Amino acid sequence: MYKISVIPGDGIGKEVMEATLHVMEALNLEFDYVYADAGDEYEEISGIALPPETIDIVRNSQACLFGAAGESAADVIVKMRQELDLYVNLRPVKSYPGTKSVFDDLDFVIVRENTEGMYIGLEEYTEEGAVAKRVITRRASERISRFAFDYAKKTGRKKVTAVHKANVLKKTDGVFKDSFYKVGEEYPDLEKEDFYVDATAMYFLTKPQIFDVLVTTNLFGDILSDEGAGLVGGLGLIPSANIGDKQGLFEPVHGSAPRHAGKGTANPAAMMLSAVLMLDYLEEHDEARKMEKALIDVLAEGKVVTGDLGGTASTMEMAAEVRKKLESL
Amino acid sequence: MYKISVIPGDGIGKEVMEATLHVMEALNLEFDYVYADAGDEYEEISGIALPPETIDIVRNSQACLFGAAGESAADVIVKMRQELDLYVNLRPVKSYPGTKSVFDDLDFVIVRENTEGMYIGLEEYTEEGAVAKRVITRRASERISRFAFDYAKKTGRKKVTAVHKANVLKKTDGVFKDSFYKVGEEYPDLEKEDFYVDATAMYFLTKPQIFDVLVTTNLFGDILSDEGAGLVGGLGLIPSANIGDKQGLFEPVHGSAPRHAGKGTANPAAMMLSAVLMLDYLEEHDEARKMEKALIDVLAEGKVVTGDLGGTASTMEMAAEVRKKLESL
Ligand SMILES: CC(C)[C@H](C(=O)O)[C@@H](O)C(=O)O
Ligand SMILES: CC(C)[C@H](C(=O)O)[C@@H](O)C(=O)O
Repeated sequence: MYKISVIPGDGIGKEVMEATLHVMEALNLEFDYVYADAGDEYEEISGIALPPETIDIVRNSQACLFGAAGESAADVIVKMRQELDLYVNLRPVKSYPGTKSVFDDLDFVIVRENTEGMYIGLEEYTEEGAVAKRVITRRASERISRFAFDYAKKTGRKKVTAVHKANVLKKTDGVFKDSFYKVGEEYPDLEKEDFYVDATAMYFLTKPQIFDVLVTTNLFGDILSDEGAGLVGGLGLIPSANIGDKQGLFEPVHGSAPRHAGKGTANPAAMMLSAVLMLDYLEEHDEARKMEKALIDVLAEGKVVTGDLGGTASTMEMAAEVRKKLESL
Repeated sequence: MYKISVIPGDGIGKEVMEATLHVMEALNLEFDYVYADAGDEYEEISGIALPPETIDIVRNSQACLFGAAGESAADVIVKMRQELDLYVNLRPVKSYPGTKSVFDDLDFVIVRENTEGMYIGLEEYTEEGAVAKRVITRRASERISRFAFDYAKKTGRKKVTAVHKANVLKKTDGVFKDSFYKVGEEYPDLEKEDFYVDATAMYFLTKPQIFDVLVTTNLFGDILSDEGAGLVGGLGLIPSANIGDKQGLFEPVHGSAPRHAGKGTANPAAMMLSAVLMLDYLEEHDEARKMEKALIDVLAEGKVVTGDLGGTASTMEMAAEVRKKLESL
């Protein structure tokens, strides 16, 4: 029995969450779901986007499924990452069948540092404008590098690439790069390399096949993972895991999409894949593979899929189809 | 007679410069070239990558053609931009014939702020690691926005899009975004919009046709323009202009490519297109269009082009072919 906190949040977050939980009922696992509030709608009624109770509920769960937050997303999700020290943001870039990908053979993972860098929250107005601090610590750089190397080892990947801008940010990204190579010495069997962030943004287009596991600082990871999403057809299929030493929080990379909300037509795939990441995090790899395969089969058939995937199914019709596949596996 | 400073620099910088000057001889214009040193090779013999004489030579010229610098690129080019207050970095993203583009119908321009942001050079080591400052001023944000709007107006473009991360960098990018809209009020005929940098990195792949002129801060511009280069086939064809109130400095976005240097096989197109940008900067639009057309014709024919473009020509053979076309226009 796993204790899972559930934050549907705003807009399509609620719809894709319902769809995902519907599919998860067919897994051979038991979950104790605890619901919690966060986001714009909750802020409207309570005056606060992320109440302390929600943080406590997540803290007391083994994992959290998070739908989406609207305008308050930055406050909700960045705060949650920092408060719970969810220092890893894991974002797979994987080509799935039935999607409009630029490349159909990609399978790499971006490991983004999730607690510091430009997200540290140290910003001040000045006479002339404003100044923000980018904080890079050895501790955070080493632990995110260690996570990336361990992840590569555990998942049978061969190479870890550090991404930085150490030609310009000589000190901060010098610390990041040095930490990466220092920790890397403990992993003699893994290949290591490093690129500048601008070059990486180009290589994603000119030779993305060279990537396996990437590790980078917070904002570079933010930008590159959205570019990665674009490479494989957009945000509709991109899940993410926010992982700390005590919990994981799993969320689609897409937002609450207010213009599409309330219609029941949102693509639930990114939320479902986020649940798959959660199952892997809980070491339920067999169930993870089953749920993933059920979804992939539905995508590949391309019949009972949502509008953005070229179909006409509603969110819940697509969920029902995925569940049917899952039950037959 | 234009006074032009010429900095061939390192590696293939020298080769593509020679090729470009060879083509320019066929223009109906007179140039007084003054050569200057910068880069790794010069650092090796002199101990300094960017001597003050070079800065003076550029300061006393109307425009500068810059090839490439190797390891010292960050010191040379960032310093030059700041010393000469070349506050605009203009980078066209344009699909040319005969190249391996993801999209073959792109034509937008990135206007990157070139003097502050993360390039301000305020970085310190701390006990725990290091801290860098990101400085955004109203003055720089307004003048880069004004340049972008003026450029759009002058070139008949319709829309200017500001790119920022104001949901996380609320103060610094708040200043940038507010400055953009404030200056924008003076341009009622131009469409204005703004996106987050991560979303923009994705839209480059999912709907790049929506872009016309983009304006953004220094490091975001660095990353997005390399992504833009990837969209239209890589760095081989991407020129850039560094523009201030007194001078312009024109350089290919590619580097000195030490592994390809000395073979005479480098693709000179990005340097030639940088010269085209210089001609436009000098208001020699007719000559600019002629030189550009000569190059495009050679690319479209695809016969006398370098290896990266699928041909077997040397750098100088391709230059001779472009010159021949130019002479026949
Ligand atoms: C909503 C926003 C603050 C967030 C981020 O910048 O991290 C989002 O873009 C993401 O990538 O999860
Ligand atoms: C060489 C480097 C310092 C430079 C930059 O980051 O601006 C380059 O990438 C560029 O885009 O001109």
